[in-house]
Amino acid sequence: MSLHPSVAAVRLGVRRVLAPLASGDTVLVACSGGADSLALVAATVFEARRPSLRVVGVTVDHGLQDGSSEQAARTVRQMAEIGCDETFTVTVAVEDAAGIGPEAAARRARYAALDQVADHVGAALVLLGHTRDDQAETVLLGLARGSGGRSMAGMRRAFDRYRRPLLDVSRLDTATACQVEGLDAWDDPHNSDPGYARVRVRTRVLPVLEDELGPGVAATLARTADQLRADMDLLDDLAEAAYGTLVEGGSTIDATALAAHPDALRRRILRLAALAAGCPSSELFHEHVLALDALVTDWRGQRWVDLPGHRRGVRRDGAVSIERAPTGGVPSAPPD
Amino acid sequence: MSLHPSVAAVRLGVRRVLAPLASGDTVLVACSGGADSLALVAATVFEARRPSLRVVGVTVDHGLQDGSSEQAARTVRQMAEIGCDETFTVTVAVEDAAGIGPEAAARRARYAALDQVADHVGAALVLLGHTRDDQAETVLLGLARGSGGRSMAGMRRAFDRYRRPLLDVSRLDTATACQVEGLDAWDDPHNSDPGYARVRVRTRVLPVLEDELGPGVAATLARTADQLRADMDLLDDLAEAAYGTLVEGGSTIDATALAAHPDALRRRILRLAALAAGCPSSELFHEHVLALDALVTDWRGQRWVDLPGHRRGVRRDGAVSIERAPTGGVPSAPPD
Repeated sequence: MSLHPSVAAVRLGVRRVLAPLASGDTVLVACSGGADSLALVAATVFEARRPSLRVVGVTVDHGLQDGSSEQAARTVRQMAEIGCDETFTVTVAVEDAAGIGPEAAARRARYAALDQVADHVGAALVLLGHTRDDQAETVLLGLARGSGGRSMAGMRRAFDRYRRPLLDVSRLDTATACQVEGLDAWDDPHNSDPGYARVRVRTRVLPVLEDELGPGVAATLARTADQLRADMDLLDDLAEAAYGTLVEGGSTIDATALAAHPDALRRRILRLAALAAGCPSSELFHEHVLALDALVTDWRGQRWVDLPGHRRGVRRDGAVSIERAPTGGVPSAPPD
Repeated sequence: MSLHPSVAAVRLGVRRVLAPLASGDTVLVACSGGADSLALVAATVFEARRPSLRVVGVTVDHGLQDGSSEQAARTVRQMAEIGCDETFTVTVAVEDAAGIGPEAAARRARYAALDQVADHVGAALVLLGHTRDDQAETVLLGLARGSGGRSMAGMRRAFDRYRRPLLDVSRLDTATACQVEGLDAWDDPHNSDPGYARVRVRTRVLPVLEDELGPGVAATLARTADQLRADMDLLDDLAEAAYGTLVEGGSTIDATALAAHPDALRRRILRLAALAAGCPSSELFHEHVLALDALVTDWRGQRWVDLPGHRRGVRRDGAVSIERAPTGGVPSAPPD
């Protein structure tokens, strides 16, 4: 029996990621029971035969849906049947203590739990099942958010010990791979709930883009994300280096030195300065950065620039700094 | 009578662009007779009263539609009625001699004609009527093309003596401004022909994005374009500087020196090298650049990389170069 191309595509992605590991290493695979991560588990177990890796499966039960513990138990059984050497369920309670929103809080709790299991089993790598379609959706969601190239750079292929081996594999391939291999994938009801922007992008936006602009839009978006990520990484690195030089030995930045940097760096440097001064990143918008930038490039004696987190940007004696706003004053206004 | 906000928005855009001009300077306005450019002419004539600029209107007749010369004559009459000091019609014959496609050929012919008129009248600036909605469409078309951040960076606000004062103004505002000012705008039938990808983006894609991801998507896309343009300009500048250093005194590039550059620069440098060696830019895709990059970062004795324009990339003695492919050989294959 020849190898089905969808199974081959999933395995190829996994093989590339596992290549640096040595015999006896442990790889942890995160699995929801959905087609993407179930196909990932199967491919990892297959690819781990040589060089004989230990495969540990883990499923995270957020406890947010009825029957979530039964679904977690079912996933654990499937992972064992596929051939994982060991399996875990971790239950996380999502509390949005940091006030970052329920989805971000769930994500943070999930990664904290995965980190714990990875430490516990001594995992060299943790594999996540995000596909090319997930990446395309992430790019479009970022586009709609409109915070520049970074928001469209999608998900990272690798960070810390985490890897996403399926970012070049379509969701159709993971579903087909499950069918071919007789794996009964779970349909998360959240995946068809149009209350989520991601679901609307998947079911309504991407199909229209494919119809009107030609097939292959998802692959195009994923490719764009790769290029933008490399671009944004470099620009961020350059900005951090320049910021480090500019603030050396103080908290103010010389406006003339700052003005010598091109737009793309100057604005990133000002953003770093605002974050370092305590502005919360979730509330610091491009408009704030542009208002700060006007202190440098369009100086006409502005009194100050209001910033989130009760901060303000000021220019004094040719230097820009970000200070605490006086307490008890008027509520901060949006930047002009 | 108070000033209508749509008229105010158009005038504000024009005022900012005209600010550097001095009394007696000439500004040329390109006008198709459509709402965008007709509102632009009216705003320019208004804003030119102080500091007393000379406003010249020009319309370009491509001769591609029946009745185009009548439409051009009508536009010229309207520009004169609005108060242009002088008006021109230029007729351009579009011949795609360079083989760049009919739309690109028409654009090239149009700018050549505008340049001629600008020289003739001694224009300090040439104004173009592209709106924020045009910019959003350009970003989405670039997104679908998938050639990275540059393709999503949209239209420039300024290049040479050309300016686009309405990139922050919505198309709705220009249409409303025309109504309020009693200007009878022309509906170009091309603007509703779904044979054009741009028309499909306008009429089918953007409305779905607005519905599913919230209002203001066009403004978000335009803002993203601004940020990406600054980012891409800097990265291109850095790559050109690095390329100049690397090829100094020869046509080969030392692979070790190249490998020291981050992804975003290394790939741009290789692209510049391919263009300098004669690869046509319209056929040089990211896949070609990645294959060249593999000669640097994934060297395993590849024989060569096929490139468009009968070129090939090779690595010899630790240096990468791009050479003419031998003639009479097999047709070039796509890069692996």
